[in-house]
Amino acid sequence: MENLIVVSSDCHAGLPPEKYRDYLDPQYRETFDIALPATMAITEKSESTFLLKEINDQWRSGIEDQLDGAWQYEQRIKVLEGDGIAAEIIFCDGITERNSPPFGAGLSLPTKDIVPELQWAGARAHNRWLSELCSHDTNRHFGVAVCPLLWDVEEAVKEVRWVHENGLRGIMIPLLTSGFESYHHPKYNPFWEACESLGIAICLHSGAAPMADFFGDKFPDIEMSDYPGAVGMYVSEVFFWTYRPVIAMLWGGVFERFPKLKVSVTETGTGWMVPSMLKMLEHHYAETHFSAKLGDYRSHLSMSPVDYFRRNCAIGASVMPRGDAEKYHDIGPQQMMWGSDYPHPEGSWPHTGTSLIESFKGLPVTDVEEMLGKNALDFYGFDVDKLKPIAERVGPLRSDFI
Amino acid sequence: MENLIVVSSDCHAGLPPEKYRDYLDPQYRETFDIALPATMAITEKSESTFLLKEINDQWRSGIEDQLDGAWQYEQRIKVLEGDGIAAEIIFCDGITERNSPPFGAGLSLPTKDIVPELQWAGARAHNRWLSELCSHDTNRHFGVAVCPLLWDVEEAVKEVRWVHENGLRGIMIPLLTSGFESYHHPKYNPFWEACESLGIAICLHSGAAPMADFFGDKFPDIEMSDYPGAVGMYVSEVFFWTYRPVIAMLWGGVFERFPKLKVSVTETGTGWMVPSMLKMLEHHYAETHFSAKLGDYRSHLSMSPVDYFRRNCAIGASVMPRGDAEKYHDIGPQQMMWGSDYPHPEGSWPHTGTSLIESFKGLPVTDVEEMLGKNALDFYGFDVDKLKPIAERVGPLRSDFI
Repeated sequence: MENLIVVSSDCHAGLPPEKYRDYLDPQYRETFDIALPATMAITEKSESTFLLKEINDQWRSGIEDQLDGAWQYEQRIKVLEGDGIAAEIIFCDGITERNSPPFGAGLSLPTKDIVPELQWAGARAHNRWLSELCSHDTNRHFGVAVCPLLWDVEEAVKEVRWVHENGLRGIMIPLLTSGFESYHHPKYNPFWEACESLGIAICLHSGAAPMADFFGDKFPDIEMSDYPGAVGMYVSEVFFWTYRPVIAMLWGGVFERFPKLKVSVTETGTGWMVPSMLKMLEHHYAETHFSAKLGDYRSHLSMSPVDYFRRNCAIGASVMPRGDAEKYHDIGPQQMMWGSDYPHPEGSWPHTGTSLIESFKGLPVTDVEEMLGKNALDFYGFDVDKLKPIAERVGPLRSDFI
Repeated sequence: MENLIVVSSDCHAGLPPEKYRDYLDPQYRETFDIALPATMAITEKSESTFLLKEINDQWRSGIEDQLDGAWQYEQRIKVLEGDGIAAEIIFCDGITERNSPPFGAGLSLPTKDIVPELQWAGARAHNRWLSELCSHDTNRHFGVAVCPLLWDVEEAVKEVRWVHENGLRGIMIPLLTSGFESYHHPKYNPFWEACESLGIAICLHSGAAPMADFFGDKFPDIEMSDYPGAVGMYVSEVFFWTYRPVIAMLWGGVFERFPKLKVSVTETGTGWMVPSMLKMLEHHYAETHFSAKLGDYRSHLSMSPVDYFRRNCAIGASVMPRGDAEKYHDIGPQQMMWGSDYPHPEGSWPHTGTSLIESFKGLPVTDVEEMLGKNALDFYGFDVDKLKPIAERVGPLRSDFI
């Protein structure tokens, strides 16, 4: 085939906040009605704290239709196909902060100031709606359900089954585990087991970080001038928090016990993040001098954390700068997966064509094919034959990259 | 001079726990008597949880005299000079977990399950004793006081003055700031100002990490088999937590406001840690694509965080593996400072001579001179002339490294 099958490993979808009401179990709708204005006010306040209103208004102006694809299927397909994309992985939080599921059940999955039962309800509302969206073609739209695993492992296992039965194929779990057992604890075994046996991928996406550590407890009701370094700290740390659950799973032997479990980590500064992280893991697995006084922490692993990472994990590298694409073989051959980040502002859409040429033209075409689609097709288990006709219609040509 | 002036940027001293009693303000001694057996029991329990008792007993056997140098001056001098060391930076926690100041006022400076007033009392007890130890020769023994800054900035400023008046020259502040304002907050300005104006260096040392995140809330009363990955997580993160305060200060513009403030970061996996951290900072300072939606977080800085780091910070690189020493110019010329970590088990003592040859022989002698002493002499502001006679007596020869 002359066309490449392009998979966006990083897309988002979400309803306008008020429309989640119908997808909530009825007993939560009254609470939803009370919470909605407060949630909207916090979003507004947060936009003005960050001085972002202007940037956002400017950015949104003229592309309203394309942004509507965050929830409207026809519009979504139009943007995706215009970008040459055949299939996508769909996370929550459509247009960033404006389309998050109810009760904090979005990318940040907070555990503070949250009623667990409500967050479950919010997650399920989103999962129901996402299941509808993906039902147009579950092979083309790989839906990632939201699962606030920390509150209750048994409930989470039930959700994995629901996810599997309803055409969703991935599941997102909280990144921030402080105050709970982290993911190296054996209590999560039933959850890993359910995901492995039903072929549900665990999909982590950057965004969450302990905001109170940067902005204090009263955020967003603060004076930004009191926190001059807070955003710098956030951007410096956010990928640490995204990878933290994987580090816990690697050292905890999760992939030793569940060798077919799959975990992807998306939008995390691939080029400067992953190589140093792997060097760090290798260092601590191989070295004994520094750590001798800490006793044995390796013998339950039959191989290095780096080996598990290569075997069980993939990297949703989103809009790769050329520098990252050039370092493909150092960073993660078979692991790096491109993504458009539609409909987030930092994405390549609707100019993916140009962006791909900038990042990939002149690199070995087999590498480009892998980064743009093949790695995601293999890792997430797409039915490639069904995607071929789409790619033949919309996909970029191999020759574009030579 | 043919001999090199060797400075150990990473040494420790501390009394046997029960001996801190006399250095406490009298009103805290009764509480001390009650707390001591519990503290000892936790240390014991912790050694058995980590399966370390055997390793530790074996390690200590036959070197008891040298370990006593953790608090006995004559013995200490003997070990230092036997190692060829002319001067030292002294942190707390003499023989690791066995000589920590009272009430949690040691390397980990915890903020949970601690009474602030007691921690201050413990810190002051240690500082008093350390001041006595260093009074033998304050130019040779650079004492680092303990300061639980988070509880009270005004108290901390008073402590800086006490430190200055009592011959100590550095001050250690908590690494873990969760639950408090982090160090980018302007509330700490009076503290930075006091340190800058009195020439007191802020000295961070690795060790603290949010243990409950790894071992749960009941540590050390746990079954290690429930936490198979906990130590792996600890070693993977511990240096992140050590550098976190510096990241906050860099982004917060602390070195913009206090251009002569000095911060050292000690025992933190220099080779694989620092270059990637600097790359990360540079990336977030230079890039705008990812962070555009986060508003302006750079305009209060007149230069890059990396530039402040090069100007205001130094790296206590402890026992450098040869690989780190070889990358001196990439990692931190003028910044990397060797250390023996006496009397900690992972240190080079009492075989520093051999260790130095392994790490440095064959490298440019000017580089070796800088890493072994000159960088520390400059950064910490030693009186070099006073150290020369000592170095002439005990220091290794330049020719040893050719």
